[in-house]
Amino acid sequence: MSDAERPGGLPFPFPTVAWRDEAVVLLDQTRLPGALVWRTCGDVAQLCGAIRELAVRGAPAIGIAAAYGLALAWRRAAASGDGPAAALASLGAARAALAGTRPTAVNLFWALGRQARLAERAVAAGADAATVGAALLAQADAILADDLARGRALGEAGAALLPERCAVLTHCNAGGLATGGYGTALGVVYAAQASGREVRVFADETRPLLQGARLTAWELAARGIPVTLLCDGAAGGLLRAGRVDAVIVGADRIAANGDLANKVGTYPLALLAREHGVPFYVAAPASTFDPATPDGAAIVVEERNPDEVLCLGGTRLAPAGVTAWNPAFDVTPARLVTAFITEKGVLRPPYAASLAVLGPDAGA
Amino acid sequence: MSDAERPGGLPFPFPTVAWRDEAVVLLDQTRLPGALVWRTCGDVAQLCGAIRELAVRGAPAIGIAAAYGLALAWRRAAASGDGPAAALASLGAARAALAGTRPTAVNLFWALGRQARLAERAVAAGADAATVGAALLAQADAILADDLARGRALGEAGAALLPERCAVLTHCNAGGLATGGYGTALGVVYAAQASGREVRVFADETRPLLQGARLTAWELAARGIPVTLLCDGAAGGLLRAGRVDAVIVGADRIAANGDLANKVGTYPLALLAREHGVPFYVAAPASTFDPATPDGAAIVVEERNPDEVLCLGGTRLAPAGVTAWNPAFDVTPARLVTAFITEKGVLRPPYAASLAVLGPDAGA
Repeated sequence: MSDAERPGGLPFPFPTVAWRDEAVVLLDQTRLPGALVWRTCGDVAQLCGAIRELAVRGAPAIGIAAAYGLALAWRRAAASGDGPAAALASLGAARAALAGTRPTAVNLFWALGRQARLAERAVAAGADAATVGAALLAQADAILADDLARGRALGEAGAALLPERCAVLTHCNAGGLATGGYGTALGVVYAAQASGREVRVFADETRPLLQGARLTAWELAARGIPVTLLCDGAAGGLLRAGRVDAVIVGADRIAANGDLANKVGTYPLALLAREHGVPFYVAAPASTFDPATPDGAAIVVEERNPDEVLCLGGTRLAPAGVTAWNPAFDVTPARLVTAFITEKGVLRPPYAASLAVLGPDAGA
Repeated sequence: MSDAERPGGLPFPFPTVAWRDEAVVLLDQTRLPGALVWRTCGDVAQLCGAIRELAVRGAPAIGIAAAYGLALAWRRAAASGDGPAAALASLGAARAALAGTRPTAVNLFWALGRQARLAERAVAAGADAATVGAALLAQADAILADDLARGRALGEAGAALLPERCAVLTHCNAGGLATGGYGTALGVVYAAQASGREVRVFADETRPLLQGARLTAWELAARGIPVTLLCDGAAGGLLRAGRVDAVIVGADRIAANGDLANKVGTYPLALLAREHGVPFYVAAPASTFDPATPDGAAIVVEERNPDEVLCLGGTRLAPAGVTAWNPAFDVTPARLVTAFITEKGVLRPPYAASLAVLGPDAGA
């Protein structure tokens, strides 16, 4: 890969989550764009901390990190001499700890479920601890590789929806950094660029944690795609001015009826897009669809520390004694979604029928 | 006034703009909530700088400051020995400089026009420079006193619209700090409190300059009104959850058909309010209504420095080389406005007819 393809010294797809020397290595997203710092998680407690602090974030990336996390838990137990039964107990504890980090992104539970089932079946079949450890690591690698492949397929399906010259509005970061390295909403943008389309992006800065300003702007600039930031509240004026051809966002959980949770601020964007006749696309792999959740009302929306709103970089923005409401996500009703862009194609309403194509890949 | 009525050592209504020792004295809103600092503008250039830097902001407050600014320009000219003709030339230059500071808030042009007409008529009638200088100061004092009286009247008209227990969602700061000291949208809240209603406020933080977090939260907390901050993008989830009884905002310019410019992010809020059947009220004095602007398309929306989005407190948030689009306002169509709350009562659609009650007080 040439230097031109390694902006900031990074290869593409971005190395969001990796396995190295018996540890989960994360590109620390709390430090971007100021510094490229890798965070090494040598045990599950460290990984749980990294997920809670958003060193790794984005529904698919959290799933991948959790898959490696269960491989890590098993292999540490096996390395200390535990047999399959004891290692299975360690795995169960690790699964519970990882499941407790963040409630909304379903990919976390999907990945934990896949790894736990693998271990349980292997133990039941009489596999030894080392064999199960190897299989868990191999499945985590496969989940990462699948994510990249699905991102590319999803991206190509989405790119076909865009005109030759187009302006895309996105929210938060549904890019390489939110996934195994290629992206969902931004995967569509990357595929559009690769197909020769002239694509530019308007990126909501995405308060409170500024994933749009810090991460989306960073990765688009690194890939040579023109990007203009705006405050979340400015999207209304932008859409009203007719400057956007498509809104594309990611998702953290998509219910059976097509209602979805995504970063707080997504729902107003969907409403604005409908008002102005601009298509509103949700780009997500099958692992983000949750057939077990009937609709948006059943999605648990994580509420995070008010200090994320009240303070920035250690400086308090609001007066002492004032509090904040800080939901990490909001719920967008399915009726505002023009289509879901998935690795299995573009799914249109009625979603109760069209989402069935995702089959057994979907859900936790 | 007891200490309990002077939170932070400040009286209420807040001393947003004052005249002291031949200078315009502003409560420096760029320093709130961290510090109570008064900024003394001894000439018009200093006042123009203070308006551009938002040391004074909010459409009515800018109008008041500009009125004092023309008194200042005249009186400095007169004090240096200028006669009426030369002072009138200084006044014209000051008017042009002040008019060039910010384009959107009509109250600025309204106040400048009133002061300029007074001076021109007085000079035509043969008044001497000292007499005109006294008259300009008296009219600036009257504009401030009127603003306070109109804020109270407007507040009482608006409070009558609210239930006995209510949660109000507001955007930016349309409070005492945005006016002569009492407020428009928050004037309604203060009047509701005074009338014995149990009122609490949800305040959008209002990016990029965080007037909600820094100013609205500060003045509501100072007045003992429960306030909860949220990110601008979180208002959708709040309205969807049914937690808001009324949205009340201010305005910077209201066109003849009822379309209005207000702080960027207002338009999405209006759309959300309609979607959820929550009344969307715009609180503004007659001086904010501009019959000379036919509709929203004719309103000039100020675009400010991208650094307001890209940086915070001297720290760059976004990667180098990335730019931002930073409109200070957006335009909300009249059809989304449930009613205008004014000092002459609550005005309802059709606005082409109902706004006529404002008569000669309206406009630049």
